[in-house]
Amino acid sequence: MKKLIAEFIGTFWLVLGGCGSAVLAAGFPELGIGFVGVSIAFGLTVLTMAYAIGHISGCHLNPAVTVGLWVGGRFEGKDVFPYILSQVLGGIAGAGILYLIASGKSGFELGGFAANGFDEHSPGGYNMQSALITEIVMTFAFLIIILGTTHKKASAGFAGMAIGLGLTLIHLISIPVTNTSVNPARSTSQAIFVQGWALEQLWLFWVAPIVGAIIAGLVYKYLAPNNE
Amino acid sequence: MKKLIAEFIGTFWLVLGGCGSAVLAAGFPELGIGFVGVSIAFGLTVLTMAYAIGHISGCHLNPAVTVGLWVGGRFEGKDVFPYILSQVLGGIAGAGILYLIASGKSGFELGGFAANGFDEHSPGGYNMQSALITEIVMTFAFLIIILGTTHKKASAGFAGMAIGLGLTLIHLISIPVTNTSVNPARSTSQAIFVQGWALEQLWLFWVAPIVGAIIAGLVYKYLAPNNE
Amino acid sequence: MKKLIAEFIGTFWLVLGGCGSAVLAAGFPELGIGFVGVSIAFGLTVLTMAYAIGHISGCHLNPAVTVGLWVGGRFEGKDVFPYILSQVLGGIAGAGILYLIASGKSGFELGGFAANGFDEHSPGGYNMQSALITEIVMTFAFLIIILGTTHKKASAGFAGMAIGLGLTLIHLISIPVTNTSVNPARSTSQAIFVQGWALEQLWLFWVAPIVGAIIAGLVYKYLAPNNE
Amino acid sequence: MKKLIAEFIGTFWLVLGGCGSAVLAAGFPELGIGFVGVSIAFGLTVLTMAYAIGHISGCHLNPAVTVGLWVGGRFEGKDVFPYILSQVLGGIAGAGILYLIASGKSGFELGGFAANGFDEHSPGGYNMQSALITEIVMTFAFLIIILGTTHKKASAGFAGMAIGLGLTLIHLISIPVTNTSVNPARSTSQAIFVQGWALEQLWLFWVAPIVGAIIAGLVYKYLAPNNE
Repeated sequence: MKKLIAEFIGTFWLVLGGCGSAVLAAGFPELGIGFVGVSIAFGLTVLTMAYAIGHISGCHLNPAVTVGLWVGGRFEGKDVFPYILSQVLGGIAGAGILYLIASGKSGFELGGFAANGFDEHSPGGYNMQSALITEIVMTFAFLIIILGTTHKKASAGFAGMAIGLGLTLIHLISIPVTNTSVNPARSTSQAIFVQGWALEQLWLFWVAPIVGAIIAGLVYKYLAPNNE
Repeated sequence: MKKLIAEFIGTFWLVLGGCGSAVLAAGFPELGIGFVGVSIAFGLTVLTMAYAIGHISGCHLNPAVTVGLWVGGRFEGKDVFPYILSQVLGGIAGAGILYLIASGKSGFELGGFAANGFDEHSPGGYNMQSALITEIVMTFAFLIIILGTTHKKASAGFAGMAIGLGLTLIHLISIPVTNTSVNPARSTSQAIFVQGWALEQLWLFWVAPIVGAIIAGLVYKYLAPNNE
Repeated sequence: MKKLIAEFIGTFWLVLGGCGSAVLAAGFPELGIGFVGVSIAFGLTVLTMAYAIGHISGCHLNPAVTVGLWVGGRFEGKDVFPYILSQVLGGIAGAGILYLIASGKSGFELGGFAANGFDEHSPGGYNMQSALITEIVMTFAFLIIILGTTHKKASAGFAGMAIGLGLTLIHLISIPVTNTSVNPARSTSQAIFVQGWALEQLWLFWVAPIVGAIIAGLVYKYLAPNNE
Repeated sequence: MKKLIAEFIGTFWLVLGGCGSAVLAAGFPELGIGFVGVSIAFGLTVLTMAYAIGHISGCHLNPAVTVGLWVGGRFEGKDVFPYILSQVLGGIAGAGILYLIASGKSGFELGGFAANGFDEHSPGGYNMQSALITEIVMTFAFLIIILGTTHKKASAGFAGMAIGLGLTLIHLISIPVTNTSVNPARSTSQAIFVQGWALEQLWLFWVAPIVGAIIAGLVYKYLAPNNE
């Protein structure tokens, strides 16, 4: 139960911090943080929670991560569903608080919130094929980083830093394509508020990250079994 | 006594570095550091002092942190008031030096200095409700990070990095809302120079951070008692 | 064989992440990541892979690094060629995926991709002499960092962070001069897509990095032999 | 002798990297790195060298650091002068290489290079009093960070990160005031090329950093003697 609360709080923080920086601060006139700031923010949500709650729940905060760790032989199958449920609920709670904060300003409009999308809902106008490739490959790399840095031969303690900064890197590359998901809980939390097109395109942000994570789990298990 | 001097120097540095980067460098024409730079600066004041004086005083630099650690069972109640006093005095000293530097330029105007505020004194025009929620939730997350990364099961040594970068993250999200406090000493140091509205709104930047810190202390103690 | 697959994946990630951030996100209107974001991205590809696959292959991801480590007495001569081949192939694969993603947008033009160049193909218009000096000196410093941080007397575990951030630093300095290579595999991966001038100027981005790496290998071996 | 070569190479890198990023990349049209990028670059020159050559020479790279460590009881008096000489020569070599690179572009003008100054030579027009206070206080804080993070009670290994990022922080605050020195070797290396006003104002960038470093040495020795 404490593990599930930790995952809830962590994913709450990931959505509030990552999507929050995008909604509140990215486009602030002249002084705004832009995509660089949003990328740093997403990464730091994971870095901070990795050191804060990693010793409680493992700090997945992401259904694709949970699935990838399970396929890679690092996580028990029976805990997969409860973890994913906690993550989705935590993400929605984070989006709710963000909505409360963001709406406390005259002239507020929800717009696209920080939802993920493709075609006309891609920040840079990229099509569905680009979105699919991007989300599969980015999540693949994210899981290779996670599986590699938490391997027993890796430098103990540095995993949280490398994984967090890995998520920063992924955002630096791919915000223009899909607004960057690699995390179905994060995508769901925004789509529920935006409704319409965001819910229609949500399937891609469950399928592609999970496919990328499964491939990474299989590849990394071949490269370096943890009991090697 | 050495602990109190360390807290004084550390909070001096937090205000001079964090607020100083905002006042001196954020809006510099074309090359200015913007909110991203100010966010990095605030975080690095804590990161640097955590490793420099953490072994002397614990490096709180913030009354809300001191209260949160006390509620979370990590700090002696009898030291709470002296720590807070040192922090407030150190912050004011930092603001004084910053004033001396900033005023050495023709055409200098104090303006809002780097004070915290809401309604028309929020950088992005957010109302009091948004400010309250933001400061409570951000300080809650800050204390979860602090309590979690300094837990005896966490990776030793990485706490200073995660806590400092956590403060960077909090600024990336919330500068547009309240100019980001999460620290009553930092807010007080600026309000004393700005006077007027800054003093009138100062109550929120004592109440909300301390409320958030208390909640985090209670939640984290439930999640992972340190003597578990 | 697993080592070669690890080098392939790592260099794939270096090109996809570093060049990808440049092609997709650097010049995005208003919110683009600029040279700062690209510099951070290149560095983080190496930082993340250093902790993820460093314990498998050593994580060179760069023919100049492989040569420099060999000259510095840290790598077996017989593995130099297979490593370089894996790196070049991995880089080309990364460029291919990047091409697929980038072209999924109406109005896409390849342009210079993220190729390296001098004279009219230098981002800032620097001539061949500047390019040669820059690539030699930057790779020299990169190898001094690599050889020094992986020396047995250095703080264990921190090498991956210092090397990755060292590559960030090198990009912060030298993108305007040559678009920054210090890595023949990275340069080759882009030149193959751009053809023409990029292939004609490619020699410099093999010769200069390798010359810089050899000098660093000799200097560092004198300064601090690993068996000292 | 190897220590002096290490200090030479390290200070060479500090000037080439820090001043180089300022001269070559800060003001690049649209994509330039601005003061944020320059601040990160200066910090990373020290972070990278701290891990690479710290185990050879201690990685001072700065006459004020050498003096502060001597006053703080961490460095032998007899080595102070040779270290400073190596630092100044290394800095000048770095400036020379930077000049060669920067001049390989049509229309190059030296201008202020990356020299430090006050009054009309301060980037933001700050007067001599602001410059004096800034350089004294910033160097004071820098030495507190250095003395604190290398104290035997501090977390081993993290000093290089905290010191490097501390220099980043110092630049985020004070580039607008003096272009940030805190390092007489760095200031000298630029003034020699700029001549005129830069040489006339150079005294301040020797006196103020060394005064700040001496105060820090005395204060920190009181706070936490290393043999405590």
